[in-house]
Amino acid sequence: MTEHAIPSRSSAAVPASARVTLRRGADRGEHDPATIRSILRAALVAHVGVQTADGPIVLPMAYGLGDGFVYLHGALSNALLRGAVDTEVCVTVTILDGLVVARTPFHDSMDYRSVVVRGRARLVTDERERLDALRAITDHVVAHFDQARPPSDEELRRTRVLAVSLAEASAKIRSGGPADDPDDVAGPHWGGHVPVRTVFEAAVPSADLSGPVDPPDAVTALAGRSADER
Amino acid sequence: MTEHAIPSRSSAAVPASARVTLRRGADRGEHDPATIRSILRAALVAHVGVQTADGPIVLPMAYGLGDGFVYLHGALSNALLRGAVDTEVCVTVTILDGLVVARTPFHDSMDYRSVVVRGRARLVTDERERLDALRAITDHVVAHFDQARPPSDEELRRTRVLAVSLAEASAKIRSGGPADDPDDVAGPHWGGHVPVRTVFEAAVPSADLSGPVDPPDAVTALAGRSADER
Repeated sequence: MTEHAIPSRSSAAVPASARVTLRRGADRGEHDPATIRSILRAALVAHVGVQTADGPIVLPMAYGLGDGFVYLHGALSNALLRGAVDTEVCVTVTILDGLVVARTPFHDSMDYRSVVVRGRARLVTDERERLDALRAITDHVVAHFDQARPPSDEELRRTRVLAVSLAEASAKIRSGGPADDPDDVAGPHWGGHVPVRTVFEAAVPSADLSGPVDPPDAVTALAGRSADER
Repeated sequence: MTEHAIPSRSSAAVPASARVTLRRGADRGEHDPATIRSILRAALVAHVGVQTADGPIVLPMAYGLGDGFVYLHGALSNALLRGAVDTEVCVTVTILDGLVVARTPFHDSMDYRSVVVRGRARLVTDERERLDALRAITDHVVAHFDQARPPSDEELRRTRVLAVSLAEASAKIRSGGPADDPDDVAGPHWGGHVPVRTVFEAAVPSADLSGPVDPPDAVTALAGRSADER
């Protein structure tokens, strides 16, 4: 897999700044907001990076999408989110679409869609935005916020919500088979790719489910679908 | 999803240092090397974090496993790997196993297996270790290194290989359904989980494949399997 760029910061531009301008494989780079949003909508897990005195740390997290923001949340005691407030973070999502098997390992690759969001994390304090963000995070995974028991005041108090602007986001997409050298194409080695799908199975009710409670429609609808189809 | 810890560095311990000691959800934390290796073997993509003057950056990468190391590789021009040499990095892999739908959004979660490796990236210069590392990275994805055209001297020269020690690694595993409050369990809302599988489809030969070239056995064997079964 190749990389998004990591240039140093320079003057901000819309929709992307110099530091999210793609260096290598620029043909795979996209700053189109619709492309970025479609990848963010399809993925399920973000890998969130923060800096510490002790080196970077990258952890998996759920996330949600707002108007111009990606939202993160966690318990008040969550050390990564606590440390991230008002500091630079990187929120990366990757959807693996295939394994690319080339005639030679040098050209092996993966098919994928990824988005890298860089920005300063903002603590969300407005109660309306907090609730909207929590709804967005919940419904991003499975749209059941309105069918669930609403959050209590105590639960809301115990939850930290951060927003990272999508102003500095870039997408990268690779698809299809290998790009082998002409000499290798004529040679005796196989080249191709193996598509990969992330698929939902049938829902498993809690062992302690009491009485004839049906799952929310959004849960039932997942069975047999891929993450892209949710 | 909850987090691995991000304490500050303190005295190193075996097998894990204080900074990879889990803070929250410690029951889900594992420092067992066999658990860590089994997750690293099953995952396909690592999210690699580095620090820059401009904030953290997290990018998806292929990786391989050596004896006590996780290996990364890329083109010489790859800015993240170039900047990572002799600096602290974080290599995180996450396998999503399910969506946990609780009675209330506060208890929603995901089932997953993740590993966080923190350490200083070492530039691999020994030619034997470089080749072993490239074989490990190739065969981690699809074991076809010995069936492919071997790397040329030029290709080897153009590839940077880094090693990160597994000495400071931690694993975290969550499985099963939601952990709802007793009052909610007796209530009218559904709770359960939706298993997620990452599945390989049948291999697609390159459009430019010449003649009757069969795919490597390892490629053929993937069809219908999950990433865990490869």
